[in-house]
Amino acid sequence: MALAQALAELETLLGKRLATSQAERDQHGQSETWFPASPPDAVAYPESTQEVSEIVKICATHDVPITAWGTGTSLEGHALPIRGGISLDMMRMDKVVEVLAEDMQVRVQPGVTREALNTDLRATGLFFPVDPGANASLGGMAATRASGTTTVRYGSMRDNVAGLEVVMADGRIIRTGSRAKKSSAGYDLTALMLGSEGTLGIITELTLKLHGQPEAISSAVCAFDTLEAAVETVQLTIQMGIPMARIEFVDDLTAQIFNEANGTNFPAKPHLMIEFHGSDSGVAEASERFGEVVAEMGGADFQWATTTEDRNRLWKMRHGAYPASIAHRPGCMGLVTDICVPISRLAEAVAETKHDIEAAGLIGPVVGHVGDGNFHSVLLLDPEDRDEFKRAKAVAAKMAERALAMGGTVTGEHGIGMGKMGYMRDEHGAGWDVMGQIKRALDPQNILNPGKLVEQNG
Amino acid sequence: MALAQALAELETLLGKRLATSQAERDQHGQSETWFPASPPDAVAYPESTQEVSEIVKICATHDVPITAWGTGTSLEGHALPIRGGISLDMMRMDKVVEVLAEDMQVRVQPGVTREALNTDLRATGLFFPVDPGANASLGGMAATRASGTTTVRYGSMRDNVAGLEVVMADGRIIRTGSRAKKSSAGYDLTALMLGSEGTLGIITELTLKLHGQPEAISSAVCAFDTLEAAVETVQLTIQMGIPMARIEFVDDLTAQIFNEANGTNFPAKPHLMIEFHGSDSGVAEASERFGEVVAEMGGADFQWATTTEDRNRLWKMRHGAYPASIAHRPGCMGLVTDICVPISRLAEAVAETKHDIEAAGLIGPVVGHVGDGNFHSVLLLDPEDRDEFKRAKAVAAKMAERALAMGGTVTGEHGIGMGKMGYMRDEHGAGWDVMGQIKRALDPQNILNPGKLVEQNG
Ligand SMILES: Cc1cc2nc3c(=O)[nH]c(=O)nc-3n(C[C@H](O)[C@H](O)[C@H](O)COP(=O)(O)OP(=O)(O)OC[C@H]3O[C@@H](n4cnc5c(N)ncnc54)[C@H](O)[C@@H]3O)c2cc1C
Ligand SMILES: Cc1cc2nc3c(=O)[nH]c(=O)nc-3n(C[C@H](O)[C@H](O)[C@H](O)COP(=O)(O)OP(=O)(O)OC[C@H]3O[C@@H](n4cnc5c(N)ncnc54)[C@H](O)[C@@H]3O)c2cc1C
Repeated sequence: MALAQALAELETLLGKRLATSQAERDQHGQSETWFPASPPDAVAYPESTQEVSEIVKICATHDVPITAWGTGTSLEGHALPIRGGISLDMMRMDKVVEVLAEDMQVRVQPGVTREALNTDLRATGLFFPVDPGANASLGGMAATRASGTTTVRYGSMRDNVAGLEVVMADGRIIRTGSRAKKSSAGYDLTALMLGSEGTLGIITELTLKLHGQPEAISSAVCAFDTLEAAVETVQLTIQMGIPMARIEFVDDLTAQIFNEANGTNFPAKPHLMIEFHGSDSGVAEASERFGEVVAEMGGADFQWATTTEDRNRLWKMRHGAYPASIAHRPGCMGLVTDICVPISRLAEAVAETKHDIEAAGLIGPVVGHVGDGNFHSVLLLDPEDRDEFKRAKAVAAKMAERALAMGGTVTGEHGIGMGKMGYMRDEHGAGWDVMGQIKRALDPQNILNPGKLVEQNG
Repeated sequence: MALAQALAELETLLGKRLATSQAERDQHGQSETWFPASPPDAVAYPESTQEVSEIVKICATHDVPITAWGTGTSLEGHALPIRGGISLDMMRMDKVVEVLAEDMQVRVQPGVTREALNTDLRATGLFFPVDPGANASLGGMAATRASGTTTVRYGSMRDNVAGLEVVMADGRIIRTGSRAKKSSAGYDLTALMLGSEGTLGIITELTLKLHGQPEAISSAVCAFDTLEAAVETVQLTIQMGIPMARIEFVDDLTAQIFNEANGTNFPAKPHLMIEFHGSDSGVAEASERFGEVVAEMGGADFQWATTTEDRNRLWKMRHGAYPASIAHRPGCMGLVTDICVPISRLAEAVAETKHDIEAAGLIGPVVGHVGDGNFHSVLLLDPEDRDEFKRAKAVAAKMAERALAMGGTVTGEHGIGMGKMGYMRDEHGAGWDVMGQIKRALDPQNILNPGKLVEQNG
């Protein structure tokens, strides 16, 4: 790595948009969770695809690592430049390029956040559904194959990206996908890039699929005596084909945390939060059928949120579960787990996880996108307590192993980053080597986010 | 290539399941359409994943090409072993391995056909939706990223495969995906294999996503005075968010061909064939709203197919359009085109295509999965008439160029094979080189279906 020379050339290209101040480096060397800080040597702020391509070419020439940065909310240390080099902050590329309303698509730069996009789209009658808890960048969401509360109905980033513009490790600019709704024209490079965590290319534009704002929406929350009853309600609802737009599980501790943070009055019991989208009659029909399932499973304290404000409050509370959990134990740091199992094994997986957390003497509220079989525990840890950290890591490992034993995955949505590399062999076997072969073919110098997702010599 | 040695070793492994008879070689050297015959040196019939792995290892050792074969219905010469070697006939691996009803999944071997699978599933209340016109193998459908009439609602093979077992070019066996509904665990190898046309690996097992058989189904067919009116009806129906399970366009000539083949009495006009799936009330509501759109667009001769028999007859007729078209001009061969454009450009694309066909003096019925923006013309050609063939190729080229100019793709569902390699550079630019890099990384000897999809030296 000939860093000094690279920085000089980058400065010529970017002027003040190459930052080497300690403050900016520190800001791009932190993660949301427990990983140690690891600042880059400099932060670059490109404003166009062409600039990204030039930056990558300069870094390739001098063997300098490049780690893309969106909003930095990823939870496995993805965006930490652990081998130094450049943090490529994509947030100045924040334009909604073109709304293609007739085709229900939109072209955006990667630094547009999901909330900014939906604000922009409000007047069109369309919306973009994928909603990770954080107000993440669409580039980061694509790079992590993110999903959220509406994935049960609208899919994840895997399902909602029609095409990408990507700068490859040698600076070449490619366009993947097309504006057509489907294609059989060769290898699916769009899908390959989704979830590649900045290790195969830098996403400089996305063509996203949009959905019509539903005519009618209704949301509800209800309590159950046991977590099994709550989760079995989900399983039953899916089996009956009741079309949910969202179905979220929160455990008893989370209900209590909601009360602390929002002044609400939920019973300290497991809850489901649900939402239906459709026509007036469709939503009414689905709500009624769901109500019957809940009654049968002994659910109670059913509250429908009918006004927009009530609904927004409900989902804001759900999206605020992470900061509220952190606030629940002042001074703590969070270790966030994220497994996804076949629906048939969900109740078992959640119950055993709760049991493990208790047995380890940890505090860990559990929430989940249960319609997808995906759930998290946020383990709230004293940063000084090494033993507590060790017990938390052991619980996380047990969750991952359980997910694999059940035929699931060690990460439903957060991704691998540096935190979950240790499970890749167990989950993928020789498939992980195939990923390494692809990485080496497309980034032979290993300059794109080195040390993440795939193991690489060099 | 040390063919003799390879054949000897393969015979030791497979016994009679290595065939070198002229008849069997010829059968695996033909395609559905106009490509010249190109028989393999031998046909291998594996019965297990382990055998596939052994076969691939033997072929790798001796540098012998391997071209997988499903039901051989692909339309761009995909399965033709144009560099000789082995045709790997997957049709003896035809077991439904495990129905995972609770998780709405099924594990199948690649030689199971879509019809066989749905017959097998009948009692479960579940079904597999992807339905290319032919009764293709699920391995072939995965390898071509096939889709069909129900893709507008249920998606294509891209959306309905949870995971694969694949034998790589060196004989390694990998498993991609998981049984969870989503995952962010690394590169999406499942998606990479889907549509790779046997050039990256041999699919030896698939885990497919199933859907609940709808409570209510209603189908209809109606005629329009102009193709513009028909296609605009589709655009409007989509914009209004009316949830269709199928919406197919057939042009005036196809209506006439249906009459010839089925003794029906359709007016010689453009038609739409539509289907709704859902609850009784949901289907009734959708049908009513669709009826209003049709009336507004001047559609007529509305016929609802309410009984199962009537519905089946309708879709059987649609699926039989290709053989019926071939029969329309006795002795002809078909050149099947397949473009997909953004919905906003569909009416224009279909009208201009019809115009080109007429101007070239060709006979070419047009049908399409119009809800996806995808349509075909089957150009009916006299096999002896070189000039007609040239004119047909020119029309096909113009369609492909138009699709790209409109932001679409040169193939909505049939794939590249050998027939569409010439458009790959235009569609993908440097992205095609990236595909080549992946191919070389995963199949450095270029033994898997060489000469297809990606260009390769050697
Ligand atoms: C409170 C909270 C709740 C969350 N809830 C969810 C949830 O429900 N679902 C979910 O999926 N995630 C969730 N997350 C995780 C996180 O929000 C997602 O992973 C998100 O997609 C990250 O986006 P980002 O813009 O912050 O990316 P960053 O963290 O900045 O980067 C993530 C990765 O993407 C790469 N990257 C970023 N931009 C680009 C680009 N343009 N091109 C190439 N690579 C790029 C980076 O190098 C890095 O590897 C949550 C996080 C928090 C803090
Ligand atoms: C009348 C008719 C109508 C059609 N309609 C449609 C339609 O609506 N939609 C559509 O998408 N297609 C359609 N097709 C095309 C064709 O049916 C599809 O491409 C189908 O998916 C091919 O499946 P197959 O089993 O015949 O594969 P084959 O033709 O045998 O092989 C196709 C390709 O897949 C590879 N392959 C096969 N099996 C495997 C395996 N196990 N592992 C790896 N590679 C493998 C082969 O090497 C080859 O490259 C139609 C064809 C006809 C004749």
